[in-house]
Amino acid sequence: MRTFEEYLTKLRGMRPNVYLGGKLVPRDDPQFMPGIHTIGLTYNLVQEPEFAGLLVTTSHLTGEKINRFNHIHQNTEDLLQKQKMTRLLCHKAGRCIQRCMGIDAMSALSVVTKDADLEHGTSYHERFLKFLQYFQAGDLIANCAQTDVKGDRSLRPFEQKDPDQYLRVVEKRADGIVVRGAKAHNTIAPYTDEIIAVPTRAMTKDDGDYAVAFSIPADTEGIHLISVAHNQRKRKEFHAPIENTGAAHSITVFDDVFVPWERVFLCGETKQAGQLAALFATYHRHSYTGCKPAMTDILLGATALVAEYNGIEKASHVRDKLAEMITVAELVYAAGIAASVCGRKTASGTCVPDVVYTNVARYHAGVNIYHEFEVLADIAGGLAATLPQEEDFINPETKEFLDKYIMRKADVPPEKVHRCYRLIENLIASAPGAASQISGIHGGGSPIMEKIAIRAMYDLEAKKRIAKYLAGIAD
Amino acid sequence: MRTFEEYLTKLRGMRPNVYLGGKLVPRDDPQFMPGIHTIGLTYNLVQEPEFAGLLVTTSHLTGEKINRFNHIHQNTEDLLQKQKMTRLLCHKAGRCIQRCMGIDAMSALSVVTKDADLEHGTSYHERFLKFLQYFQAGDLIANCAQTDVKGDRSLRPFEQKDPDQYLRVVEKRADGIVVRGAKAHNTIAPYTDEIIAVPTRAMTKDDGDYAVAFSIPADTEGIHLISVAHNQRKRKEFHAPIENTGAAHSITVFDDVFVPWERVFLCGETKQAGQLAALFATYHRHSYTGCKPAMTDILLGATALVAEYNGIEKASHVRDKLAEMITVAELVYAAGIAASVCGRKTASGTCVPDVVYTNVARYHAGVNIYHEFEVLADIAGGLAATLPQEEDFINPETKEFLDKYIMRKADVPPEKVHRCYRLIENLIASAPGAASQISGIHGGGSPIMEKIAIRAMYDLEAKKRIAKYLAGIAD
Amino acid sequence: MRTFEEYLTKLRGMRPNVYLGGKLVPRDDPQFMPGIHTIGLTYNLVQEPEFAGLLVTTSHLTGEKINRFNHIHQNTEDLLQKQKMTRLLCHKAGRCIQRCMGIDAMSALSVVTKDADLEHGTSYHERFLKFLQYFQAGDLIANCAQTDVKGDRSLRPFEQKDPDQYLRVVEKRADGIVVRGAKAHNTIAPYTDEIIAVPTRAMTKDDGDYAVAFSIPADTEGIHLISVAHNQRKRKEFHAPIENTGAAHSITVFDDVFVPWERVFLCGETKQAGQLAALFATYHRHSYTGCKPAMTDILLGATALVAEYNGIEKASHVRDKLAEMITVAELVYAAGIAASVCGRKTASGTCVPDVVYTNVARYHAGVNIYHEFEVLADIAGGLAATLPQEEDFINPETKEFLDKYIMRKADVPPEKVHRCYRLIENLIASAPGAASQISGIHGGGSPIMEKIAIRAMYDLEAKKRIAKYLAGIAD
Amino acid sequence: MRTFEEYLTKLRGMRPNVYLGGKLVPRDDPQFMPGIHTIGLTYNLVQEPEFAGLLVTTSHLTGEKINRFNHIHQNTEDLLQKQKMTRLLCHKAGRCIQRCMGIDAMSALSVVTKDADLEHGTSYHERFLKFLQYFQAGDLIANCAQTDVKGDRSLRPFEQKDPDQYLRVVEKRADGIVVRGAKAHNTIAPYTDEIIAVPTRAMTKDDGDYAVAFSIPADTEGIHLISVAHNQRKRKEFHAPIENTGAAHSITVFDDVFVPWERVFLCGETKQAGQLAALFATYHRHSYTGCKPAMTDILLGATALVAEYNGIEKASHVRDKLAEMITVAELVYAAGIAASVCGRKTASGTCVPDVVYTNVARYHAGVNIYHEFEVLADIAGGLAATLPQEEDFINPETKEFLDKYIMRKADVPPEKVHRCYRLIENLIASAPGAASQISGIHGGGSPIMEKIAIRAMYDLEAKKRIAKYLAGIAD
Repeated sequence: MRTFEEYLTKLRGMRPNVYLGGKLVPRDDPQFMPGIHTIGLTYNLVQEPEFAGLLVTTSHLTGEKINRFNHIHQNTEDLLQKQKMTRLLCHKAGRCIQRCMGIDAMSALSVVTKDADLEHGTSYHERFLKFLQYFQAGDLIANCAQTDVKGDRSLRPFEQKDPDQYLRVVEKRADGIVVRGAKAHNTIAPYTDEIIAVPTRAMTKDDGDYAVAFSIPADTEGIHLISVAHNQRKRKEFHAPIENTGAAHSITVFDDVFVPWERVFLCGETKQAGQLAALFATYHRHSYTGCKPAMTDILLGATALVAEYNGIEKASHVRDKLAEMITVAELVYAAGIAASVCGRKTASGTCVPDVVYTNVARYHAGVNIYHEFEVLADIAGGLAATLPQEEDFINPETKEFLDKYIMRKADVPPEKVHRCYRLIENLIASAPGAASQISGIHGGGSPIMEKIAIRAMYDLEAKKRIAKYLAGIAD
Repeated sequence: MRTFEEYLTKLRGMRPNVYLGGKLVPRDDPQFMPGIHTIGLTYNLVQEPEFAGLLVTTSHLTGEKINRFNHIHQNTEDLLQKQKMTRLLCHKAGRCIQRCMGIDAMSALSVVTKDADLEHGTSYHERFLKFLQYFQAGDLIANCAQTDVKGDRSLRPFEQKDPDQYLRVVEKRADGIVVRGAKAHNTIAPYTDEIIAVPTRAMTKDDGDYAVAFSIPADTEGIHLISVAHNQRKRKEFHAPIENTGAAHSITVFDDVFVPWERVFLCGETKQAGQLAALFATYHRHSYTGCKPAMTDILLGATALVAEYNGIEKASHVRDKLAEMITVAELVYAAGIAASVCGRKTASGTCVPDVVYTNVARYHAGVNIYHEFEVLADIAGGLAATLPQEEDFINPETKEFLDKYIMRKADVPPEKVHRCYRLIENLIASAPGAASQISGIHGGGSPIMEKIAIRAMYDLEAKKRIAKYLAGIAD
Repeated sequence: MRTFEEYLTKLRGMRPNVYLGGKLVPRDDPQFMPGIHTIGLTYNLVQEPEFAGLLVTTSHLTGEKINRFNHIHQNTEDLLQKQKMTRLLCHKAGRCIQRCMGIDAMSALSVVTKDADLEHGTSYHERFLKFLQYFQAGDLIANCAQTDVKGDRSLRPFEQKDPDQYLRVVEKRADGIVVRGAKAHNTIAPYTDEIIAVPTRAMTKDDGDYAVAFSIPADTEGIHLISVAHNQRKRKEFHAPIENTGAAHSITVFDDVFVPWERVFLCGETKQAGQLAALFATYHRHSYTGCKPAMTDILLGATALVAEYNGIEKASHVRDKLAEMITVAELVYAAGIAASVCGRKTASGTCVPDVVYTNVARYHAGVNIYHEFEVLADIAGGLAATLPQEEDFINPETKEFLDKYIMRKADVPPEKVHRCYRLIENLIASAPGAASQISGIHGGGSPIMEKIAIRAMYDLEAKKRIAKYLAGIAD
Repeated sequence: MRTFEEYLTKLRGMRPNVYLGGKLVPRDDPQFMPGIHTIGLTYNLVQEPEFAGLLVTTSHLTGEKINRFNHIHQNTEDLLQKQKMTRLLCHKAGRCIQRCMGIDAMSALSVVTKDADLEHGTSYHERFLKFLQYFQAGDLIANCAQTDVKGDRSLRPFEQKDPDQYLRVVEKRADGIVVRGAKAHNTIAPYTDEIIAVPTRAMTKDDGDYAVAFSIPADTEGIHLISVAHNQRKRKEFHAPIENTGAAHSITVFDDVFVPWERVFLCGETKQAGQLAALFATYHRHSYTGCKPAMTDILLGATALVAEYNGIEKASHVRDKLAEMITVAELVYAAGIAASVCGRKTASGTCVPDVVYTNVARYHAGVNIYHEFEVLADIAGGLAATLPQEEDFINPETKEFLDKYIMRKADVPPEKVHRCYRLIENLIASAPGAASQISGIHGGGSPIMEKIAIRAMYDLEAKKRIAKYLAGIAD
C-alpha cells in the first residue's frame, strides 16, 4: 500500500491546474495541506495496531491486502466495517475524513456497470474491474464529481439554454469521448488522484448526451479546478490536532476533456444514469451513518468537557441536552447498522445497503446538525465567540490577566480551559465550523432529497391497506 | 397450543376479583371483550399461513411447538422475529397487541434468576425454568405488574410513611411469602392467567423487603383488580375490525397475598431487584421497536388514505408530512434491528438486546407520538371531531343529506369516506385514541426514563477524550 | 339584557330540526345541556362584579347597555377588551366559550357590507345595521356557518360536479332568495338563535351564485342540523365545574331555505365574498388570541397542580416545561395585544385587528396545541389513562384501597389527588379532550391557512430589498 | 449632536489600552473600523430624512434635541419608537447596531438609582441625572460591562477562592472607590467613550463589595481591553455594504481602577444590585425585540432572494419556510409591542417594558436563531460553503468559467448571482456569521435565563387556582 509520502510526492508532480484566490497554485499549497493531512490519516493509521484491523482488508479481485477505503463491499459485514471505520477516523480528523466519496462512487459503478451490461450487452463491467484493479493496486484517492451546476433549476438537462449546464458528451471518437460542463462542490478535488464523474439526477431519453460516467486523472488536459479551502487558523504555541486537518472544494470545469474508452463507464444509457445517481447517493448517505455520528461525538465530547470544566455537568438541563445529542448520534448509527445488515447482494456481487434505512438515517442527521451546534453554543456560553486570540494568551502584558480570569474550578488549570474554548471556537465560531453546518445539511444530499428517496422507495399502499382493513373498506 | 375458546373458558372459570365501574364483574364483561379479542388474535392467527411462520416457534426447553409470545430469546434472530411479529400483529389489532409484556417479564426473569444464583447461591433459575415449562405448556397469558403506586415520589421505598406504597414482603413462611402493596397501570390484568410482579426501580440495602419478584394466578386470594377499559364505540351497521379490539388496565391490589416459594423468583436480593427492573424495561422497550412503528403505520395509512380520498395526496405539504411519519417509524424500527443484531448472550443463555439502541428507539417513538396524531388531525381536517354519529348515517331522514355532503372525489363512494373518517374519529377523537397518546409516551417507560437509561449506559468519558485529543489537552 | 332562563325558554320553543344519534331531538336534549350551560356563562356572569366591567358595554348604535359579545369593535381598546374577556371566560368554562363566533361574523359583516355598498351602490350596510340593532336588543346568540362541505377539493365552487357542494343561491325572488348547500363543523348550531352564513373562500367571477351572506333563525324551514356533542362524563359524587360545560357541532343542511332580503348581506359580489371570508377569519383568529392562551392556562394550571401534588414541582424538567407552556400562552396573547393596538379603522367605523400579528398568533397557538397536551401527559404520568371510574372511588369494597394507594405527599388528602387526576382525565384522556386538540388546530383556520394569509399580506419584496442593499445589488 | 468624524477623532485621542492579537493597538486599528462604522450609522443617519424622525428626539432633562440612543424612555411610545429604530438600523448594518446597550444600562440606572435613594436615603439619582446630562450633551457611546468572568459557577461572589472573579470594590476613599475584577463579552468596548459597569446577578448580604455600579471613560488608568474582532473579508472589487460593518468584543480588566464618587451609582446596596442586573437585562432583551426581527429580516430577505434567483420561490417547501421565518420575526416583534404598550412608569418617571412579554419575546428569538440559519442554508444549497474567492471571479483565466457556470435563470446576470451568494457566504459561512449565531443565543441573556425570569415573574398560583376551580378542589 502507498505511504503518505508517496501520495504527497505524486501530488507534487501533477500538472498545475488548480486555482485558488485568483492564482494558479501548486497542489501542496499551504491552504491545501490540512486537507492533504486529513487524507493522510487514512494512509498513516494503517500502521497503527488500533486501526489496522479496520483499515486493511483483502481485495476480492486479487486477494491482495488493500486499504478498506478502496474495497468493494462483498457482504453486510463489509458495510458494518465501513461505518465503524468512518466513525473512528473522523474522530481523529475532528471532521469529515473525505476519502469515502471515491469508494462510494466505485461501489455504485460496480453495480450499475453490471446492470447496464445485462440490459444493453455492453462491456462496462469488465472495463470497470480493470480500472478497479489499477485503483486498488495504486492505493489511489478519488473525488466523486456528481453535482452539476444545473443552470435553470426548472429545466431538464436537454432543455437548458446553455447545454453545458450539465456535464455532457460533445464528441464521440474511436478512442474515446470528449466531455464539457462543470461539477460543483467537489470536495478534495485539489488533492485527489482521480476524478470520477457520475450523473446527478434521473434522466429522460432526450438526455442521452448527459448520461455519462467515467474516471480521469485530476490533472488531465482541459480540467480546471477552481478551489476554495476552509481551514482552522494555525496555532502559534497551543498546538492541537484540530488545526492540522481541513478540506478544500472546487468547481471542476471540464473544458472539452478527452476520456479514453477504457475509462468510460456509461455513455448514453439514460436509465442506468439515473440509477447510478441514486446508488452513489445511497452509498454516500450510508457513509454519513458513520461520519455524522462521529461529528456528533466531537460536538458532544466538547459539550461534556466544557460542562465539566464549568462545573455544570450535573445540571439537569445539561444532562438533558447531552442525552439528546447521544440520541441523535446513536439513532443515526443504529439505522446505519440496520441498513448494513439488511443490505442486498446485486448481480455484480456487490452488496448495497437498505435504501429506506440509509435515507432515514441521513435525513435524521441532516435535520439535527444545526441543533447540535446550538446545544454546544448554549452550554459553552458566549466565550466561544469572544475568546481573545491565541497571541493574547502569549503576550506577557495580557497573559496573566487572561490566565487569572479564564479560571473556573480550582482544579482545572487555565491552559486547559483556554484549549477547550479554543477547540470550541474552532468548531462553532469559525468559517470552517460554519461551513461544516452547511455540509452537514447538504453533503450526500439535502434532507429534501432524502425525503424524496424515502417516498419513492416506500410501500405507502401497504400502509393504506392497513387503514382500509381496520376501517372495513373493501376495494 | 391453546385455542382462543379454551382461553376464554378458563377466564370464565376464574374467581371473581375484578371491579369495574363500582361493581364486581365477570372476566368476560362486555367492556373487557375487546381486550380479550385483541389477545385472541395471538391465538387465532397461529392458524393462518401468513402468520404461522412468525408466531410458532420451538421451545428451547422442551423442543415442543410453542407460541413465540411465550418463547425466551436464544439469539439475535429471535429478537428480530419478535420485532417483526409485534409490528404485524399490531396492524391487525389496530393498536397494542398486549401480549408482549408477559414474555418481556419472563425473559428478564430468565436472566436475573441466573445472575442471582451465581452471586448468592440461590436456586431461583431452576424454579423459573419449571415455571417456564408450565407457562409454555399451558400457552398462558401473563401481565407484568411493575409500576408501584410509589406514594411520596421524593422518598425511597423504605422511607415511605405508609410502607405499602411499594409492594413488599410482609411475612416469610416455610411454604412461601405474604406480600402487600399495589401496582398501577396493569394492562390486561382483568383477562390474564398470571400476574408477574417485578420491582419498579433500583434499590438500596435498606429496601430488602421490596426486592421481590414472583408470578401468581390473577385470581389468587387477596388480589383485587380495580379496572378501567378503553374501547371504541360498538357499531350498529358499519362494522369494522377497529371496533373489536381494545384494552383494559387495573390497579392491582395485593392485600396480603400468599405466594408459594416455587413461584418466588427474587426475595431480598436488592442488587438483582434493580437489574430486573431495568432488564424488564429493556425488553419491553425493545417490544416498542415493533409496536410503535406499527402504530405509526396505522396513523400513516389513515393519513395517506384520507389525503387520497380528499384528492390532496400529491400536495407538497401532505407528502412532506407522510415522509416525516415514515421517518419516525423506520428510525425506530431500524434502531430496534440494531438493538437486536447487537444483542448479547447472558449467563442464562438468554439474549438481551443492546441497551443504548433500544432506549434511543423507544425515546424517539415516545417524543414523536403526539406529533403523529397532530399530523393525521392536520391532514384529515376538522371532520374527525365533528362527524355525526353512525346512526345519522342510517336514519332515512338524514342519510341522504350526509351521503350527498360527505362526498369528495366522484369516484369515491360516500360510504368509503364515512368509514375512513369513522376510523380516524376512533383513532384520534375518542377516549381510547386519547389514552393511546398517553400510553405512547409512558408505556414501557417515559422519555425521561430512557434518557436516564441512555446516560447511565453511555461512555461519555470516551467522547470527552475525543474532545481532549483534538484540543491538545493531556490529562 | 336577556337572562339565561329566557335564552333557554326560547330554545325550547323553537321548531325541532336538530338530529342527534339518529333521532330528531329537542334543543334541550341532555347532550346539548353542557354546551348550553357554556353559553349560559356569558349571560350569568354579567351579574358578577368581577366580570360585569368586561362583559357589559355600550352599543355604539343605541347607547344601550349590551353584552360585549354583541358589540362591534369601535376602537383598539374594544379589541383588547375582547381578548381579555375571552381569556377569563374560557377559564370559567374550562374550554372554548363559544359565543365569539357570532360577533366575529357580525364584525366582519359590518365592514364588508359597507365596502360592498361603496363599490356597488347597494344598501347592505343599512340592512345590516337594522339587523344589528335587533340582534343587540334581543341579546341573541349566533352561529357562524362558514366552512362549506367543499366536495372535490381540487375544484372551485362553480366547477363541482354537484353544484351544491358550496352553499349557493338557487332562486332569487322579489321578497328574498332561496339557498341550497351545507356547512360543516358548525359549533353551537343546535342551541343558537341565529345562523349567519358567510362564504368560505375567495371567489372568481364565475362563482357568483356562491357569493352569498345572510342571517336566519336556526329553526327556519329547510334547515336540518345533524349534530354531534362532545361532553364530559357526568359525575355521581365528585362534582366539579368541568363536567358542566361542553360543545356540540352540526352539519347544517340548507335544503332550499328561503331568506328574506332584509336578512341578505351579500348576493353576487364575488370580490366582497372573498373579503368577508378572510375578514371573518381574521376576527375569529383574533378571538383565538384570547381563548387559546386560556386553554394553555388550564393545561398549565393542571400541570403545575399535579406536579405539586406529586412533589416534583421543583424538578428541573418540570420547571422547564412549565416555562415552555407559559411562553406559548404569552407569546400568543402578546401578539394578540399587538394586533389589537395596531388595529385599523375601516370605512364602516369598525376596527379591524392587524392581520399579520393576528395570524402569527393563531399559527403559533395551532402548532403548539398537541405539544401542550403532551407536556401535561408527560408530567402527570400514566394515571390519567388508567384511572378507575368514579364509582370505584365510591364502592365501599374498593374505596379504601384506592384512597390508600392514590396518596402521594402526606399533606394532600386522597380526594384532592383523585379530583386532580379526574380533571386531567377529562382534559387529555377523554373524547372531548381529544376533540379539543383537533379544534385547537383547525378552529378559525388551520396553520396552513394562517401561513397562506401571512404570505399573502406580507411585504416580502421589502425584505429582498434589504438583502440586495447589503449585497450591493442594484436593480 | 456629535458627527461621526468627531466621534472618530475622540477615539484617536484616547489613551492606548486596547490589546488585539498580542499587541497594544490604536482604537482605529483596521480590525475595529467595521465596528466603528456600524456605530457610525447612528451618527450619519440622523441627517437622512427617512431616519431623522426616529433617531432624533428631545431630552426630557434639557429639552435639547438628542439622539434617541441616548434618551431615557418617558412613556410607552418611547419604547415603541426604540423597537422600530433598532429594527430599521440593523437592516442598514446587516447586523447588530451595537449602540443599544449603553442606553439600556442608562435606563436601568435611572430607575434603580431612584429606588435605592428611596430605600436608603442616598443621592445616586441626582448623580445619575448629572451624568446623564453630560452623556446626552456629548452624544456619547457607552458599553455596558455586565457579565463577570464568574470563576467557579457553583459559588456565589463572596465564596470564590479568588475574590476578583466578580468585579468588586477593593477600597473606598474620600474621593471615590477602587475596583478590581474583569467583565467578559464586552461588545464595542474598544471603540466606546464610556464603560458602564453593572452587576451580573442577584446578591446576598455577604456580597456587599460586589454590589457596585458606575460609569468610567474607557481609557481610564487600570483598564485593559483585551479584544477580538469579527469582520467580513474586505472585498477587492465587488464592494457591498455588508463588508463595512462588524463588531469587536473585549475582556475588560479592571486592575485597581479608581472611580470618583460622582460616577458611582451603587455601592453596597445588594438588593438594588440584583434589581439593576435584572432591569438592564429587561431593557436589553426589549432591544432584542427590535434587532432580532431585523436579523430575521436579513436572513429572510437573503433566502427569498436566492430562491428567486434559483427559480424556486414558488416551490411549496420554500414558501413554507419563508412563512416560518416571517412568523418568528413577527411574533418576537409583536411581543415587543405588547411589552411596550404594557410598560409601567416607575418612581423615577422612567418607563419599563412588561417583563413577561419582553422575556417570552427574547426567548423565542433565542431558540429559533440556529433554525433560521438552517433555513437559509437549506434553501441556498451548498454553494454558500464552496463559493470560490472573489479573486477567482476577477482572474481572467477563471472569470469566464465562473460566470458561465454560476448562471441560473437567463434573466439574472452572473454578477447578481455571485453577489447574492457572497452575501450568503458572509451571513452563514464565515466566522462573523458563526459568531452571530452564538450572540443570537446568548446576547442579552441565554434562553435559560429568560425561562428563569419568566418563572420568577409569572403568577403560576393563579393558574393552579383555575385548575382547582375546574376540578372542584377547595383549599
